[in-house]
Amino acid sequence: MPELTFQNPVFCVYAIAAALMALKLMGQGWITVVQMLTNNGGFLNPEDKAKGLANPNPSEDQLAPVEAVQRSRRMQLNDLENIPAFWLVGLLFVLTGPALLLTQIFMYGFVATRALHFWAYSTAQSHEVRATFYTFGSLIVMAMAVMVLLKAF
Amino acid sequence: MPELTFQNPVFCVYAIAAALMALKLMGQGWITVVQMLTNNGGFLNPEDKAKGLANPNPSEDQLAPVEAVQRSRRMQLNDLENIPAFWLVGLLFVLTGPALLLTQIFMYGFVATRALHFWAYSTAQSHEVRATFYTFGSLIVMAMAVMVLLKAF
Amino acid sequence: MPELTFQNPVFCVYAIAAALMALKLMGQGWITVVQMLTNNGGFLNPEDKAKGLANPNPSEDQLAPVEAVQRSRRMQLNDLENIPAFWLVGLLFVLTGPALLLTQIFMYGFVATRALHFWAYSTAQSHEVRATFYTFGSLIVMAMAVMVLLKAF
Repeated sequence: MPELTFQNPVFCVYAIAAALMALKLMGQGWITVVQMLTNNGGFLNPEDKAKGLANPNPSEDQLAPVEAVQRSRRMQLNDLENIPAFWLVGLLFVLTGPALLLTQIFMYGFVATRALHFWAYSTAQSHEVRATFYTFGSLIVMAMAVMVLLKAF
Repeated sequence: MPELTFQNPVFCVYAIAAALMALKLMGQGWITVVQMLTNNGGFLNPEDKAKGLANPNPSEDQLAPVEAVQRSRRMQLNDLENIPAFWLVGLLFVLTGPALLLTQIFMYGFVATRALHFWAYSTAQSHEVRATFYTFGSLIVMAMAVMVLLKAF
Repeated sequence: MPELTFQNPVFCVYAIAAALMALKLMGQGWITVVQMLTNNGGFLNPEDKAKGLANPNPSEDQLAPVEAVQRSRRMQLNDLENIPAFWLVGLLFVLTGPALLLTQIFMYGFVATRALHFWAYSTAQSHEVRATFYTFGSLIVMAMAVMVLLKAF
């Protein structure tokens, strides 16, 4: 049975979750851009404080850290620490021929924990709340990795 | 029809673009190494300023930031924010059975925007020029992600 | 012949290596958590120094950098610079139909170099030792990428 096709409901669940996570990751980059424009600062590169179309009123302190910009960058780095591993392990998990219900729990569960993590991080909820969502997402990825290893051995 | 094979021209286009982006990403790490050696500094770890084969003339300020080294690190982080998403979404896009021409436009278009982004970033072109190439690459990834979602639903 | 199945020994070798690397990458995030708890500091976010279940004795300097925490973060970033590229290029390499022995050398070789890199980095071995393991892992990824390109052309 071909498993990596859109005729396979298990693969479809994975593809939806994986594509949503890609839009989330790329979207975080755009949130950083919006925050830099809104705060007119938080730039990373010396050349970014030059006068130009995107920077009509340049100043020296545009390279100083701005918390809202830094927060978005930290969120994006946290995405990078979790989402690519989900993409790869999720793909291998689909190839183990899992039950549809378990796949839905893992895939949509991961998307849900990352959506809640985004809410907790962007609104500066307590460390405990944010860490809880991180933990569930991380455990889903590690559980799928262990199931891939069990299948391969 | 098996879609993930080198007999499939659409897959070949993806494989070429994905492998080139892997060489680009790994190559940026080596550019950082060359910049650290050239500038004899910009190291990250306390143990790196110890005397050794790669560091015959150690000094305390080798851990201070060096702009050329930091720039290469920022470029590599920007790669990480874009290339893994391209890898995953591009693979799922191939499985939607797209037209060869559209695949070539997306895949080689992404490679071209990242090559131009590399040129703009490494030569410190204006923010507007660099951001333009980032934008096109980001839009290609997001467009493919949306097409994957449409296929899966 | 279907290549991305657990009946294919070459794919199994890849799946084992890829899943181990996913556990390694996710595990590094947990090492950072353990280091933050052990050192009661090295936090990234202003809200993390608030009193709470995970932080019964808050203080202002909990946001100051702590070397053990920063080291774990640098190790995770180094993982991100290497492991996702291995995942993608390794998958494409499996689809080139390689010999089992060469696959084992590349896949388990990469896992071994990253395990040794983890040892060298976490115990602060000399730059030369750490760089040697980084180099072998990087060369394996680049060699597989070149072989994918040769197959696709």
